[in-house]
Amino acid sequence: MINQSSSSLDDGPLSGITVLDFTAVVVGPVATQTLADYGADVIKIEPPGGDLLRRMGGTSNTGQLSPKFLQMNRNKRSLAIDLRTAAGQEIIRTLIRGADVMVVNMREPALIKLGLTYEAARALNDRIVHCNMMGFGRQGRYFGKPAYDSIIQGGAGVAACNERLTGTPQFVPMVLADHLVALIAVQMILLALRSRDLTERSQSVEVPMFENVASFVLQEHMGQKAFTPERGDTGDVRIFDANARPIVTSNGYICVSANTDAQVRGFFEAIGRPELIDDPRFCSVEARLEHVETFFQIRNNSLGDKPTEQWLALFDQHDVPAFQYNTLESLLDDPHLEEVGFFESLEVTGEGLVKHMKPANTFSGGGRQTPQPAPRVGEQSIEVLRDFGFADDRIHSLIAADIVIDGGPDDSET
Amino acid sequence: MINQSSSSLDDGPLSGITVLDFTAVVVGPVATQTLADYGADVIKIEPPGGDLLRRMGGTSNTGQLSPKFLQMNRNKRSLAIDLRTAAGQEIIRTLIRGADVMVVNMREPALIKLGLTYEAARALNDRIVHCNMMGFGRQGRYFGKPAYDSIIQGGAGVAACNERLTGTPQFVPMVLADHLVALIAVQMILLALRSRDLTERSQSVEVPMFENVASFVLQEHMGQKAFTPERGDTGDVRIFDANARPIVTSNGYICVSANTDAQVRGFFEAIGRPELIDDPRFCSVEARLEHVETFFQIRNNSLGDKPTEQWLALFDQHDVPAFQYNTLESLLDDPHLEEVGFFESLEVTGEGLVKHMKPANTFSGGGRQTPQPAPRVGEQSIEVLRDFGFADDRIHSLIAADIVIDGGPDDSET
Repeated sequence: MINQSSSSLDDGPLSGITVLDFTAVVVGPVATQTLADYGADVIKIEPPGGDLLRRMGGTSNTGQLSPKFLQMNRNKRSLAIDLRTAAGQEIIRTLIRGADVMVVNMREPALIKLGLTYEAARALNDRIVHCNMMGFGRQGRYFGKPAYDSIIQGGAGVAACNERLTGTPQFVPMVLADHLVALIAVQMILLALRSRDLTERSQSVEVPMFENVASFVLQEHMGQKAFTPERGDTGDVRIFDANARPIVTSNGYICVSANTDAQVRGFFEAIGRPELIDDPRFCSVEARLEHVETFFQIRNNSLGDKPTEQWLALFDQHDVPAFQYNTLESLLDDPHLEEVGFFESLEVTGEGLVKHMKPANTFSGGGRQTPQPAPRVGEQSIEVLRDFGFADDRIHSLIAADIVIDGGPDDSET
Repeated sequence: MINQSSSSLDDGPLSGITVLDFTAVVVGPVATQTLADYGADVIKIEPPGGDLLRRMGGTSNTGQLSPKFLQMNRNKRSLAIDLRTAAGQEIIRTLIRGADVMVVNMREPALIKLGLTYEAARALNDRIVHCNMMGFGRQGRYFGKPAYDSIIQGGAGVAACNERLTGTPQFVPMVLADHLVALIAVQMILLALRSRDLTERSQSVEVPMFENVASFVLQEHMGQKAFTPERGDTGDVRIFDANARPIVTSNGYICVSANTDAQVRGFFEAIGRPELIDDPRFCSVEARLEHVETFFQIRNNSLGDKPTEQWLALFDQHDVPAFQYNTLESLLDDPHLEEVGFFESLEVTGEGLVKHMKPANTFSGGGRQTPQPAPRVGEQSIEVLRDFGFADDRIHSLIAADIVIDGGPDDSET
C-alpha cells in the first residue's frame, strides 16, 4: 500500500501489499514468509531482543540467525521497536494506517495493551485485513490459554494417532501444528484480501490452532463415528495398520502404494505371485479394504530378497507406484531436486552462504525477483520508518532513546 | 462465472467463482473443498464409476459415500461423465469456456488425451486459472512418476524424521503429504485468481507434491547443513530428543511446553525444584538448547506423582503452557469444541445424519450459507449441464447414451 509504484506485479501477485507482522517463533513467520515470497512487503516487527527463534532454532556463526529462523524469515524487513513505550505505540499506529494486512499471535491481554486488536486497528484503517492466530477459539473454555506446537499436537489428537499405531503417544517430529496453521492462515489472509478488495471493508480473521488441527485429524480419522448411530470405531484402518510403513528390501527400504485393481495386478505379477490376482480377498477395492491386514502382510514380506533398485525397475515396468526411501541426508543430495533448481544459496552477513529452498511451485503470476535472506534484528528499521514518512531527525532521536533499534549494516546509511 | 447473480458475496469471498474439479482421492478434493466452503461453485467431474475414495475411504451404509469421502467433498456438485468419448470431451470444452478455475491431478499422458492441459484450456478460455497438482516437477527426472501419499512421505523425508526419533522408518499416520499439498494448492489458486483479476490473463500453477513436502521437511530439519561449510548435522535437536513427547503423570499423560525464561522458572517452581532456576544449564534459551537432553529428562521424570488435572491447575497458576493429552475419542467429546460449535451434522440421503467439522476459522468475509453434504455420483449432472446452457433434450440423449450419468434423486427433476 505504501509503495504504489511496485503494484505492477513485477514481484508477483502481492506486489504493493504491505503486511505488518507482529508474530514470532514459527506459526506466524511461516505464514508471512509465503506472503513475502509472492511479493508482499512484510515488515517484521520485533522487540529489541528479537524473535525468540533467532536463538531457539539452532546455533549459527553469529548466534543471532539460527538455521530455522533463516528458513522462515526470508524476504522480510525487520523493524525493531519497543512497543511498551508510548512513542513506540505511536509509531505502530502510523504503520497500521498505511498497511493492508496485519498478523498477530499474541494472547488477548497483550493485544489489548499494545493496541493491536482488530477493533483498535479498524479504528485507524477501515481497509485493514487483521489476522489473529490464536491457540483456541474465542467462544470456548480454552480461549486465552497459551499454545505451542506440542500442546496442540497432544491436545488435538496428532500424538494419539501415533499411539493408535505404535502404542506410545508420540508427537510427529516436526513443528507440525504450527506449520499446518500457518498454511491455513495464508489461505484466510488471501480470502480476506479478496473480500477487502471487493467490498472495500476491513476484514477480521481468527485462526485458532486447536480447532484447525483437530479438524485436520478428524477429517482423516473420525471414521465410523461420523455416522449417527455410529457404525464402528474412529480411524482409517489402512493408515493404522502396522504394515503401513516403508518396506524392507535386501539393502534398505522402499515405498510401494498399489491402490487400483490394475496396480495390484501389476504388484502381484512383479513379485511373482500371479495366482493372487484372482484371489477374492484382493480383487477389488472393497475386498482389499476388508482384508487390508493380510494384503499389507503379503506386500511387506515379499520384497526382502532383492535390492531396492531392482524392485524400483520391476515396479516401473508394471506401472506400480513405488519410490526410494530417502533419509534427510539422501534427500539433500537428490538429483531430481538438483534438476528442478530446488535449492538456492543466499549470502547472509556474518553467516556466509546459506542454503534455502525456493518456492516449490511453478506460477505464471511470478514471485519475488531478488530473494533476500532473513534480516538481522532491526536491519531495516531506518528504511521502514522513512517509507512511512518519518523524518530523519525524528528517527535518530527514537534510536537515541532506545525506542527503535537500528540493526543496519553501518552508520553510513543514516 | 456462470452464475453472476451470486457475486454479491453472500456465500463468501469466492461467490461467483466456478471451479472445475477433475481430481480424485485426497489431495485435489481437500483443496477444492476449501474453495467450496468459501463460496466457489465446485463442480466435481467424476468418471461413471465415481471417485475411488467413495469406496476406499471406509465403509458406509450405502457403500457409496465412505466417511473419508464425505469429509472431503462437501459443498460440491457432481457431474458424472465419460471423458473418453468425443461427446464427453465436447461437454468439457463447453464447461472450460465458462469456468474461472480448473484443477487436475492426472499424469501428463491422461491430461493430453483428455484435453485437460493448461495449453488446451487457455486456447478455450484466456482467463482460466489452471492448477496442476503433480507428483514431481516437470524439470526433473522423476516427472511423470506416479505419486501417492506414502510414496511422498517416504521419498521426501517424513518417514526419515520418524526414523531419526525411534530408529524405525514410519509414516505419519495421516495422509499428510496429500493434505499439506492441498493446503498449498489453495494458496496458489487464490494467488493465481488475484493475478488473473489484476492482469486479465490466464494463469498456470503447477504444484509438485515431492518438492513441496521436501521443502516442508527441510525447512524444519536442514539444520546445520544449511551453512557453507556445514556446521554440523541435519535435524532440530529439540524435536528429535527422545523425551520430546507427551509426559507420563500418575493417571495418564500431559503436554507441557516451557520455552521462555519465565515459563521455565514457573515450571521449576511448580515441580518443587526452585534450585534449578539459577542452574547455568537451564537459565537461558541458549543454555537449555545446549543441555536439551538433561532439561527434557528432568521435565519428563518429574510429573509421575500427581494426576494430570492437578498438574494442569498448578501449571496454570505458574503460567506454564500445558494441556491435556487427548485420544481421538476424548477429542470428539471435548467441551471446548462443543462450545465453539465445531461440529455440524448434515443429512445425507441413504446414510442418515453425518457429523462434519465446520470451517474452524472466524472470518468476517463470511462463507457458504447453507452447507451441503458430499454428492452422490452424478447427483447434479442435469442441473450442471443446464447451468452451462445445454438443452434438456440434448441432456437426455447424453444420459441415454451413457455419456452422462444421472445420479439425481428421481426422474421428476428432469
